[in-house]
Amino acid sequence: MSDINTSKRRRSGRSPSERTTGIAQLPWRHVTNRYQPTLVLDPEQVEAIHDASLDILEEIGIEFLSPAAAAAMVRAGGSLGDDGIRLRLDRAMVLEAVARAPASFTLHARNPAHDLTFGAGRINFATVASAPNASDLDGGRRPGNFVDFQNLVRLGQALNIVHMIGGYPVEPTDLPASARHLDCYLSMIGLTDKLWRPYALGGGRIDDAIEMAAIARGLDRDGLALSPSVITNVNTNSPLRVDGPMLDGLAELARAGQAVSVTPFTLAGAMSPITLAGSLAQQNAEALAVIAYAQLVRPGTPVIYGGFTSNVDMKSGAPAFGTPENARAALAGGQLARRYNLPYRSSNANAANVPDAQAAWESMMSLWSAVMGHATLIMHGAGWLEGGLVASFEKMIIDAELLQTMAVFLEPIEVTRETLGLDAIREVGPGGHFFGAAHTLARYETAFYAPMLADWRNFESWREAGGKSAYERANGIWKQLLADYQPPPIDPAIEEALQAYVARRKEAIGRTL
Amino acid sequence: MSDINTSKRRRSGRSPSERTTGIAQLPWRHVTNRYQPTLVLDPEQVEAIHDASLDILEEIGIEFLSPAAAAAMVRAGGSLGDDGIRLRLDRAMVLEAVARAPASFTLHARNPAHDLTFGAGRINFATVASAPNASDLDGGRRPGNFVDFQNLVRLGQALNIVHMIGGYPVEPTDLPASARHLDCYLSMIGLTDKLWRPYALGGGRIDDAIEMAAIARGLDRDGLALSPSVITNVNTNSPLRVDGPMLDGLAELARAGQAVSVTPFTLAGAMSPITLAGSLAQQNAEALAVIAYAQLVRPGTPVIYGGFTSNVDMKSGAPAFGTPENARAALAGGQLARRYNLPYRSSNANAANVPDAQAAWESMMSLWSAVMGHATLIMHGAGWLEGGLVASFEKMIIDAELLQTMAVFLEPIEVTRETLGLDAIREVGPGGHFFGAAHTLARYETAFYAPMLADWRNFESWREAGGKSAYERANGIWKQLLADYQPPPIDPAIEEALQAYVARRKEAIGRTL
Repeated sequence: MSDINTSKRRRSGRSPSERTTGIAQLPWRHVTNRYQPTLVLDPEQVEAIHDASLDILEEIGIEFLSPAAAAAMVRAGGSLGDDGIRLRLDRAMVLEAVARAPASFTLHARNPAHDLTFGAGRINFATVASAPNASDLDGGRRPGNFVDFQNLVRLGQALNIVHMIGGYPVEPTDLPASARHLDCYLSMIGLTDKLWRPYALGGGRIDDAIEMAAIARGLDRDGLALSPSVITNVNTNSPLRVDGPMLDGLAELARAGQAVSVTPFTLAGAMSPITLAGSLAQQNAEALAVIAYAQLVRPGTPVIYGGFTSNVDMKSGAPAFGTPENARAALAGGQLARRYNLPYRSSNANAANVPDAQAAWESMMSLWSAVMGHATLIMHGAGWLEGGLVASFEKMIIDAELLQTMAVFLEPIEVTRETLGLDAIREVGPGGHFFGAAHTLARYETAFYAPMLADWRNFESWREAGGKSAYERANGIWKQLLADYQPPPIDPAIEEALQAYVARRKEAIGRTL
Repeated sequence: MSDINTSKRRRSGRSPSERTTGIAQLPWRHVTNRYQPTLVLDPEQVEAIHDASLDILEEIGIEFLSPAAAAAMVRAGGSLGDDGIRLRLDRAMVLEAVARAPASFTLHARNPAHDLTFGAGRINFATVASAPNASDLDGGRRPGNFVDFQNLVRLGQALNIVHMIGGYPVEPTDLPASARHLDCYLSMIGLTDKLWRPYALGGGRIDDAIEMAAIARGLDRDGLALSPSVITNVNTNSPLRVDGPMLDGLAELARAGQAVSVTPFTLAGAMSPITLAGSLAQQNAEALAVIAYAQLVRPGTPVIYGGFTSNVDMKSGAPAFGTPENARAALAGGQLARRYNLPYRSSNANAANVPDAQAAWESMMSLWSAVMGHATLIMHGAGWLEGGLVASFEKMIIDAELLQTMAVFLEPIEVTRETLGLDAIREVGPGGHFFGAAHTLARYETAFYAPMLADWRNFESWREAGGKSAYERANGIWKQLLADYQPPPIDPAIEEALQAYVARRKEAIGRTL
């Protein structure tokens, strides 16, 4: 085939903002899933889980560890137990509040080409987030630091299939904790023009995120409320407890017109019942309670229903991902989210210690389930390893290949007179081959997905080229992407305003320490 | 969790014929897919491909390189072109013949516990077949030989999730070609009591397979016709040509009441049009023509509609598998097979050169598509590497883990008052954990899939244990399975009859050489 091919790669038409590097990749694209979701629960089972979750909220209750949040729930009709903490929530109140959430919404990046819609069939892939360690083939495993943080954000920007930065890809533990969030926000705004996510660790840090997101887009807070940019994730402390700072951060975001995803972390057998049905009921109870709170703070707050139900290894208690239980729960979670007409979040997760076959098959189990569960936000889409304890540079490349593969898989098959190609079949005839057919020559550059990482050479050529595994090849690709990386343009006045904001806030934080 | 666990592993209840080894695995089970298939074509597109495929057979034609087969098609209403080879087939004749095939059928192993039903929602996993080379981590890649052949068959027997031996797992090139099939059949009948597959390389070798399958089950040919055991695969020589010996072998099997799968090997851009629609139309034309012939030989012949449409790498011409194109084609193939109410065959395929992340993600792409396309026979389910050029011992273990994962994934979620577990949630309460709950203790041994190969230990424990990748761990597992292997019992009289048959046939073959 080399005679009919050239150095050009398919889909090489890139928008001006996308730089051409030596690494072939798909151009930036919005991904839509037009296939019907895979259903693992029948409608009666969905209703049984729904009912059980509302029984949990009415009869067992949930703890909101923010006094303001608990008070708001009581004002809306909830009741506090004798302990002053256990909140019991009437099902009608919960459902009425949840019904105020929109079925889909759009968040605005500082580059409008990177705006993202959540819901409406869209799939958005986010990077790994919140890993305490980073790892690569050369440097091994080490505690998170700001250099790795920045390089992982650069890779998130460089990889077109990554739609957004999912959070801090790795925790920069070498930065002082008190003002770390300011350095991280500034870094993310500068290194990427895609969406990024702050953490709901109390109102103050969220306030900084809102202010800086507004500055980055040349807006004030009112303007940002009309054209939101910020989303954070609220994890519950399963079972049935929600952190105070998380709830206060959520409220701050909701008041500012920004968005929230709510993700119970229900590891069956540890933080939730050992049965999938029980874990899903508890997941649903926790998600609905927090989503209801967001709607009480401000009706219409954009929310995403998150599911993260997996299981623990009952030998060690270690969390496991990409398991058959995880996959079914991810699909069931999508059915529950759709029950409330809410956008759905799932994850690309695995528990492998190295980017090997296990990492890939576990990731594929969770990715397929997320996609066929119609998740609109796929967190940890690229770079997650070791059950989230590591952000891996090589795994980020491996995952980018999986995400690209999935994006092309979701393109509808075109069936037309031309694509059915009877003229080509007639021309070639029995026993011939299609390499030189006009039908082939007109399409060969764009007909098939051209991989970034997969090596399809025959064994001899592959061995002569060094016999490298996907892990080793991924190492070369991320280095090339970083070498080719150029930061996206930013208005110097905005950059200056952001730096001034950070300096001012650091000074203020210094005074309060 | 170690305090509540013991050395027992889940699902350890095995039938008497399954030996307990040091390797934890699921017991033998029939796998049924109760989920709705994933549809990548809308109904109008299915009809357009159907129509185009019949146009191909009517207007372009197909070559049947067996004079007997061509004559049979002409007798049924087909017409031969001026070249005496190009067969044009009327759509009504083809569809009428295809309609005689059963929607499902059962094949009988020499151990009745290993009988398999094809169709009716069942998924059957077969080993790798027909690889010219074998490979393992210690011995590297080498041409196929009889020792590797036997060891791979032993692994197929030892792995409970493997339902059948898909063919010669590797070609034993060290055996004389003329009588090789007799050694292979004898070996497969002795080393496994699961179904095995001969090759349709002319009537003679198929006749030997039928005779030996009958002896193995203590039946004569008439008995075997009523209770079939043998299935073979007919690949077309795409485009639009079918080997003579393949067709004659098929006819011999059909006359003997045995089964056939028909699998065009339509690599888009090489052996079929570069478009998926065109490749699927050609696949459908070739499959329907051969299935029609099987029904003309004997109406009601059990057949499987096979799809193997993938694409080539347009840079090198090398076949690629587990691609987005391969996955969509596998799902579309299922829709076409269901259009004719035929059982469907797909594959677990990849083009990696080593059992690394690429091997796993490509396998998962094709396996998910095969499963969600409702394939009833998944060929190359365990052990395929390098696009079929290698049978890999380690990949067989990796794949067995994927197949086990998929089998448990397909188990329906149980939603009952007990599994919803509200009493457990009440007992544990907010902020607690479920490790010690009665609900957990009653279920922890069987609640979750216990992997054979996945390593879920934390990084430190994993590193202390040698820091082995899945590839390295798989090496230890297949060696253990072979060390523990014991052949399934066989009636000494049957064994003797088989050996006598082989001796007699070898002598006869020797005389004709």
